[in-house]
Amino acid sequence: MQNEPLMDVAHLGHLELLTPKPEESLRFFVEVMGMTETGREGDSVYLHAYDDYERHSLKLTASRLPGLGHVAYRTRSPQALERRVAALKGSGFDIGWTNGDLAHGRAFLCLDPDGHKIELYYETQWYQPPPELRPALKNQAQRFPARGINVRRLDHWNGLAVDIAANREFFEKYLGFRLTEQIVMDDGSEAAIWMTCTNKSYDFAYTRDHTGTKGRLHHITYAVNSREEVLLAADICLENGVFIETGPHKHAIQQTFFLYVYEPGGNRVEIANPGARLILAPDWKPIRWSEAERKKGQAWGLKTIESFHTYGTPPVEVVTKV
Amino acid sequence: MQNEPLMDVAHLGHLELLTPKPEESLRFFVEVMGMTETGREGDSVYLHAYDDYERHSLKLTASRLPGLGHVAYRTRSPQALERRVAALKGSGFDIGWTNGDLAHGRAFLCLDPDGHKIELYYETQWYQPPPELRPALKNQAQRFPARGINVRRLDHWNGLAVDIAANREFFEKYLGFRLTEQIVMDDGSEAAIWMTCTNKSYDFAYTRDHTGTKGRLHHITYAVNSREEVLLAADICLENGVFIETGPHKHAIQQTFFLYVYEPGGNRVEIANPGARLILAPDWKPIRWSEAERKKGQAWGLKTIESFHTYGTPPVEVVTKV
Amino acid sequence: MQNEPLMDVAHLGHLELLTPKPEESLRFFVEVMGMTETGREGDSVYLHAYDDYERHSLKLTASRLPGLGHVAYRTRSPQALERRVAALKGSGFDIGWTNGDLAHGRAFLCLDPDGHKIELYYETQWYQPPPELRPALKNQAQRFPARGINVRRLDHWNGLAVDIAANREFFEKYLGFRLTEQIVMDDGSEAAIWMTCTNKSYDFAYTRDHTGTKGRLHHITYAVNSREEVLLAADICLENGVFIETGPHKHAIQQTFFLYVYEPGGNRVEIANPGARLILAPDWKPIRWSEAERKKGQAWGLKTIESFHTYGTPPVEVVTKV
Amino acid sequence: MQNEPLMDVAHLGHLELLTPKPEESLRFFVEVMGMTETGREGDSVYLHAYDDYERHSLKLTASRLPGLGHVAYRTRSPQALERRVAALKGSGFDIGWTNGDLAHGRAFLCLDPDGHKIELYYETQWYQPPPELRPALKNQAQRFPARGINVRRLDHWNGLAVDIAANREFFEKYLGFRLTEQIVMDDGSEAAIWMTCTNKSYDFAYTRDHTGTKGRLHHITYAVNSREEVLLAADICLENGVFIETGPHKHAIQQTFFLYVYEPGGNRVEIANPGARLILAPDWKPIRWSEAERKKGQAWGLKTIESFHTYGTPPVEVVTKV
Repeated sequence: MQNEPLMDVAHLGHLELLTPKPEESLRFFVEVMGMTETGREGDSVYLHAYDDYERHSLKLTASRLPGLGHVAYRTRSPQALERRVAALKGSGFDIGWTNGDLAHGRAFLCLDPDGHKIELYYETQWYQPPPELRPALKNQAQRFPARGINVRRLDHWNGLAVDIAANREFFEKYLGFRLTEQIVMDDGSEAAIWMTCTNKSYDFAYTRDHTGTKGRLHHITYAVNSREEVLLAADICLENGVFIETGPHKHAIQQTFFLYVYEPGGNRVEIANPGARLILAPDWKPIRWSEAERKKGQAWGLKTIESFHTYGTPPVEVVTKV
Repeated sequence: MQNEPLMDVAHLGHLELLTPKPEESLRFFVEVMGMTETGREGDSVYLHAYDDYERHSLKLTASRLPGLGHVAYRTRSPQALERRVAALKGSGFDIGWTNGDLAHGRAFLCLDPDGHKIELYYETQWYQPPPELRPALKNQAQRFPARGINVRRLDHWNGLAVDIAANREFFEKYLGFRLTEQIVMDDGSEAAIWMTCTNKSYDFAYTRDHTGTKGRLHHITYAVNSREEVLLAADICLENGVFIETGPHKHAIQQTFFLYVYEPGGNRVEIANPGARLILAPDWKPIRWSEAERKKGQAWGLKTIESFHTYGTPPVEVVTKV
Repeated sequence: MQNEPLMDVAHLGHLELLTPKPEESLRFFVEVMGMTETGREGDSVYLHAYDDYERHSLKLTASRLPGLGHVAYRTRSPQALERRVAALKGSGFDIGWTNGDLAHGRAFLCLDPDGHKIELYYETQWYQPPPELRPALKNQAQRFPARGINVRRLDHWNGLAVDIAANREFFEKYLGFRLTEQIVMDDGSEAAIWMTCTNKSYDFAYTRDHTGTKGRLHHITYAVNSREEVLLAADICLENGVFIETGPHKHAIQQTFFLYVYEPGGNRVEIANPGARLILAPDWKPIRWSEAERKKGQAWGLKTIESFHTYGTPPVEVVTKV
Repeated sequence: MQNEPLMDVAHLGHLELLTPKPEESLRFFVEVMGMTETGREGDSVYLHAYDDYERHSLKLTASRLPGLGHVAYRTRSPQALERRVAALKGSGFDIGWTNGDLAHGRAFLCLDPDGHKIELYYETQWYQPPPELRPALKNQAQRFPARGINVRRLDHWNGLAVDIAANREFFEKYLGFRLTEQIVMDDGSEAAIWMTCTNKSYDFAYTRDHTGTKGRLHHITYAVNSREEVLLAADICLENGVFIETGPHKHAIQQTFFLYVYEPGGNRVEIANPGARLILAPDWKPIRWSEAERKKGQAWGLKTIESFHTYGTPPVEVVTKV
């Protein structure tokens, strides 16, 4: 009888995004994405999508270069946090405890094999809307903004990594994430992975960084309620001069209906809708896509745009200059 | 430190629906709902929605009266099944092991406090599409039918029950379901509960049966990918002479966008879309709706139709005549 | 050989709405409906939906009571205007020429048999967006606002009238409107008419005023691009405390997908989407709905709400008090 | 005072499509597009979209090569037909009267300057659904099929032409079509035109044929009710092995939300939705797009696919071989 699945990580909690243009980035997330500022501290502004239950899902931090500050996952219980920390301690990936942040309690830091900074925490502040933002329906965190794209909640993020297999094994072994889809090249190497700790078909993905640069970000993703709202998002980006890289279209992999844009700081942001697709099977068999299948492009035949394979943050030409 | 959540039940697996008009009901599920027949045995036909990963999510059984045959939940692992069985044995709710069914392995039967038959199982057959039903995208169970309503997957079911609190406690204690929303009357009694074992905001609900009749069914629900498809479903039901009870509209509770119809056998069937709403918080605080709030009707003010409070299957006037 | 159709009226141009709460009404049209203020004069504010080609489609005028100020139709040419004026002069319905208004040239005023004030004009100002409202696509009048409901353009209006047949004959004879649908009671009397001068299936409707009061307004309607946006409009009204009278749902008559709300001044406002439905036939045969058919309710079975048959502006209890 | 607009042509009535694979093409239009066969005669099958008011909008004719047989426009009245014929006779474009076709009366044939065969008619058969196809709502021509893409009605067609200006002048002078948008190259030559005789923003378009071949077809277009249905159409084409050339995406020109596929006979077919956009202005000023603007690609930045500029039917390599 096989081992039982680890269920210790509950969900992706928040992301820290670095931006060299903090004011423009903030305006993008508030005016175009429709998010709400929920705190400020130092060089960081905290942001909330209207149905995120925690106080923030995005920490926007001024920085010389764009990129990812850290990724935070909330554990299912205090005990689960202790178990994951016990497993990580001495693994070589562990950094150690911090006192937490503006909106959550103590956290344990580690690095994935590619060097992305991963934070685990349990104690958190639930979002409390001020009177003017109280929702009409009390099962919703905040009132629907009716401003810009109206993203509902943080959905997932996508990292670039040099060694995809090493990262997959790290997340399987230490954090209990389950692989749902992957790209396997003709030489047997893994080119991309999609992993989940929920019933969403993925909470993050890693794509191979062909430049050999470590720790970079491919994109972060917020969810809207329908494909129609992704189309409206494209109209809104067009009107606001936001650079649209590709989409709207449907990914063959994971079937996500996507729109990719660059926020003013240079980070790629996705607005997405998955339809009614969920992974309910506790023993889901990972879908493997071959090189040939990948070359077919997206679901309806759109060729994958070249920059999608090369652009990440920080941009590699800037990194290597440093 | 509080106890950790039980994570032993993975998801709602399938429902058995009883129908006095088996041919008309079958035609409804195949032609109007867009489902596929995947087996027959005795008086039962097995049916599959295009993205159900298991061989069936609906067992349609000929019967003198409409209603619910049984409800089946799949456990997260063989070990999880053993743990739930161990807890149930001797509880007074347990019936015992069966050899399983056409499409799944051995199962443990029990009764909830209201007498609905509940089945737990782990071993299952994955759906294998015949060549003409193979999907273009291999992360989907079956090709999109493009026929009728095109329901994607089983979503939840709703039982009527005489003692709501007793049922809530049963599912919390023995099966580890978590309460996400409920209606609490002014006298403190519970009038309805919504519970989940996944990240969906509910996998089932129970509503108080004012007739005092036990074991009845309120409705079963299939999910489509968008609210637009729920609207199309209403058009399709109208054209096919299917009785539309209420909707499309949005529930205040759980925010589900719904359409309720009666299949030819008399059972209520819902076609629904939840948007991007998920319960990610492992410590979700149940939303309590008061009598006064409930009387406001649905989200956009639609008064709850009277039959919604009284009609279930089998119809009570038939049951009491027996 | 039958007479050729009159093609002299091009389209519904604008409506003047009276409101006893001018500031709240203005906030509703700007913040909730997503319209833009394009002028002020006296007690009136002029408003523009983002793809209205003329400078305004709504003139909001402070008044003791809510209701309709006037309805304006643009003719197809200067010559067409002269022809209609020639036909009206001496008809008993004519009032005479005015010097026009803030955003259009000289106009000819008349009264329909029920006393609604009708204005005909040809010369008009095209909307010129200020730099910050210039659209990304130059075939659109103004940039998509991404604020509130984002109505695209004025669609139609609905008057209450005591003698429906007399009004139909007036619009057929003097203005060349064509009847597309109607309700005919069992006694042969007309209870409602839908008429068009375009390929839209109606540019206005009249419904019998059971109170016997003349010149009242049932509602005005703005169009959005999809049914999904009508659903979003309902969410937005809910969040903004706007009273939702009925909908979203689909009318059996004309198949319009509708949402009816009351603006703060008390006037009924509809947000609607017709799908791809157009009347292309130059010899369309009017659809006649009987009393029995009308009683079936809306397309998907929603019973027509009582206030829909009784409420108009100004409210009759106020009018009769005067 | 300028001349009044000609209003003699009411709308695009039907198209004759030539196909070298008549059975496969028929299956495509019936099973994938969701249309209904309404007649057969000789090598032709007549097809109806569910809300076309006439008996057919498509005549599918077996032929050695794919391409356009003829295009038919219905006039607004018998008198209007006589006027257009009088104008055309002796123009050099006229061919002469025919006895009509299966579903419409006598027609006058002419050729546009590029040699596309144009038919004008007034007398027509209204579609009469057999009992099993009667709609639930009597203002709809036929019951909603709930099969495949469910196209609602013929929308427009797009021809390739060697001399765009000559074609524009022909349609303006002889048939009264109005130019709504166009592409004008840096050298002042016209590269494409969009013209209308209705409130739709175009009833046909002509695009310059860079191969210098006359009389070819770029595509025909059917309308669905929403952008969501265009997305569903893409899923359905994917599942049915229908070649998707480009889309779904939004055209900058005319803002049409499009999907282009090739039917089995080789002709390009578009499924489209225009949202709520209509041309209501009787004096619409044509939008001119420059070479530079055209090179920006589609509305959201999708580069126009190369085959869109080169592929038409019959394919030029086949034509020139003849």
